Amino acid sequence: MRTAAHTHTLPTRFLSPANVAELVGRKGLPTCLMEMADAIQQDFLRWPDFDKTARVAAHSDVGVIELMPIADAHQYAFKYVNGHPGNGQHHLPTVMAFGVLADVATGTPLLVSELTLTTALRTAATSALAARTLARPGSRTMALIGNGAQSEFQALAFQHLVGITHLRVFDVDAAASAKLVRNLAHTGLHVTVCSSTAHAVEGADIVTTVTADKTNATILTADLLRPGMHVNAVGGDCPGKTELHADVLSDARVFVEYEPQTRVEGDLQQMPAEFAVTELWRVLSGQAPGRQSEADITVFDSVGFALEDYSALRYLARVAEQLDLGTQLPLIPALANPRDLFALVRPTRPAPAAAPSVLAHAAGTTTTAPRAELV
Amino acid sequence: MRTAAHTHTLPTRFLSPANVAELVGRKGLPTCLMEMADAIQQDFLRWPDFDKTARVAAHSDVGVIELMPIADAHQYAFKYVNGHPGNGQHHLPTVMAFGVLADVATGTPLLVSELTLTTALRTAATSALAARTLARPGSRTMALIGNGAQSEFQALAFQHLVGITHLRVFDVDAAASAKLVRNLAHTGLHVTVCSSTAHAVEGADIVTTVTADKTNATILTADLLRPGMHVNAVGGDCPGKTELHADVLSDARVFVEYEPQTRVEGDLQQMPAEFAVTELWRVLSGQAPGRQSEADITVFDSVGFALEDYSALRYLARVAEQLDLGTQLPLIPALANPRDLFALVRPTRPAPAAAPSVLAHAAGTTTTAPRAELV
Repeated sequence: MRTAAHTHTLPTRFLSPANVAELVGRKGLPTCLMEMADAIQQDFLRWPDFDKTARVAAHSDVGVIELMPIADAHQYAFKYVNGHPGNGQHHLPTVMAFGVLADVATGTPLLVSELTLTTALRTAATSALAARTLARPGSRTMALIGNGAQSEFQALAFQHLVGITHLRVFDVDAAASAKLVRNLAHTGLHVTVCSSTAHAVEGADIVTTVTADKTNATILTADLLRPGMHVNAVGGDCPGKTELHADVLSDARVFVEYEPQTRVEGDLQQMPAEFAVTELWRVLSGQAPGRQSEADITVFDSVGFALEDYSALRYLARVAEQLDLGTQLPLIPALANPRDLFALVRPTRPAPAAAPSVLAHAAGTTTTAPRAELV
Repeated sequence: MRTAAHTHTLPTRFLSPANVAELVGRKGLPTCLMEMADAIQQDFLRWPDFDKTARVAAHSDVGVIELMPIADAHQYAFKYVNGHPGNGQHHLPTVMAFGVLADVATGTPLLVSELTLTTALRTAATSALAARTLARPGSRTMALIGNGAQSEFQALAFQHLVGITHLRVFDVDAAASAKLVRNLAHTGLHVTVCSSTAHAVEGADIVTTVTADKTNATILTADLLRPGMHVNAVGGDCPGKTELHADVLSDARVFVEYEPQTRVEGDLQQMPAEFAVTELWRVLSGQAPGRQSEADITVFDSVGFALEDYSALRYLARVAEQLDLGTQLPLIPALANPRDLFALVRPTRPAPAAAPSVLAHAAGTTTTAPRAELV
């Protein structure tokens, strides 16, 4: 191996899905969701500190791959995430993700982490954070439309952060609902499996939509809404991928994460540019009103914003250090002389007799070495 | 560990700097540079196949962190790369990088690789590819201004791809030049250490600038140029980071990688929007002329484009598979049921007697499980 010896500790920690699952297991899932929501809230409260940009998407016929960068003065984070609704046929998750936390002062990657599991955690934590702020106090029943990979995380976040006790669930695939029921046994949640979206929405205080089709679907129509409802729209997050009928938005107060991104990606993509929305951080910081009456219909048109991943990565980094989880990833070369990158590939050979003399070469002198193949 | 067993081979290969150094050692550095240049040329020749975008940069006072995504119909690639000229004081390289190659059809990350070493290889290969096309035939002497981490790679690429036999090198730090001389012993290159840029440029057929300061430096002025020279400007690659006096560009035919990016990042940032440049791929494919006379001064205003990293990552993936290099990286969870992400964090407990019955729940029925803490 032609490599510099690793003389110091590698700077990059790696967390696999198993590491993050162990982290969640040791902290407890409700604690993780609550602490992650707190971390997200703290970062949303210092919104102006961040260098924000809409994510960069590469679309294909079957899905999308996105990069989501963000930075403050101290740390930089990005997430890689795909969305491929047909991945089930390949025995792969619809959404897969990983991310990196880096040091702004030097560019060093400090953490490389799985974010497939973590995305479900931070999305649920953000949804519950928004609902805690926007839903009617005393909300106890949530309709949960779409019972796929993210649904149980939404359920538990709303149980522990918002006080939801009853779920009314629906999925076009009954097996997905059955899986949700199995997974939520022993959580204390009362789960009702429903036969349609309309059935699930009956009597709900909160409606969460978390479906995956990359189409302009109409999961929720305005006739299903009742005064006072809060709609947590998670699945419409990509151009051409919506869940709400435009009338749902027209009739509601609409809240978003980062307006420039949601205008393109959210259910909001159906609305004219002048349709007014409020960024959630402004409500959290008291700069804008949230719900203004018991009868308001509020919509959180969530698409997922890079700041949530920044918060999640920082949370993972902190807890992983406390619990000593993960491994060192040899991602960046450890060089004896940082300007001597060539040392990594310099052929090892016996030091030639004349070699030391090159050190003494004065400016303007010439050295001619015998031609030799490099390796 | 609360994780699904890895029942199948993980899809993601990881290459550390040591793995890539071993790959280079086994192939031979000249072969690697030549094969990488060929791979880049092949991909440049199918330029219209790619979904291209200027890279996304996060600037701070001391450096920049960038993401460079690109995709064709089959594969997606991105690079993370920083540029921090003051990193030497932290005993870190100025430029550190890693990248990912992914499957467009499913979003699966196929390769995570170090790209610190690889960036030096692909940058040198691209420079030599451009010079092979643009420099005067019979060019034998190259001035090499800036003798830092990338300089030896430039030297060897120009030796093996362009036919350079003599180097005239200069760096404001004499230790950097001494390091270059040591590293290039036994390569057959004749190296002259010079006392200034002007001294180094004397008699050169090609001038390569590869300096690191994040300033609008003027490394090369028009009075130093001679008819027929080719300038390979590598170090000016960021807003506010240039190497050439504007007159150098005015007097030359200027070639770039991807015009929208180079207008912002290259030495070209100094020129008015109407100043004409030619994208290299158009010359390679015969759609635009390159050098038109012996006396032309040609400039390759290189900033580094995502397609070069795509080509390099695909090359690494192919050779690493041939040589069986690298390790499996557990980046994406292996799930028995891809829609059951919750399985990763579901507490393991004795199966309760009633559990199987939830499978039989019909639509509209209700299950109420005893409330229990999740973990």
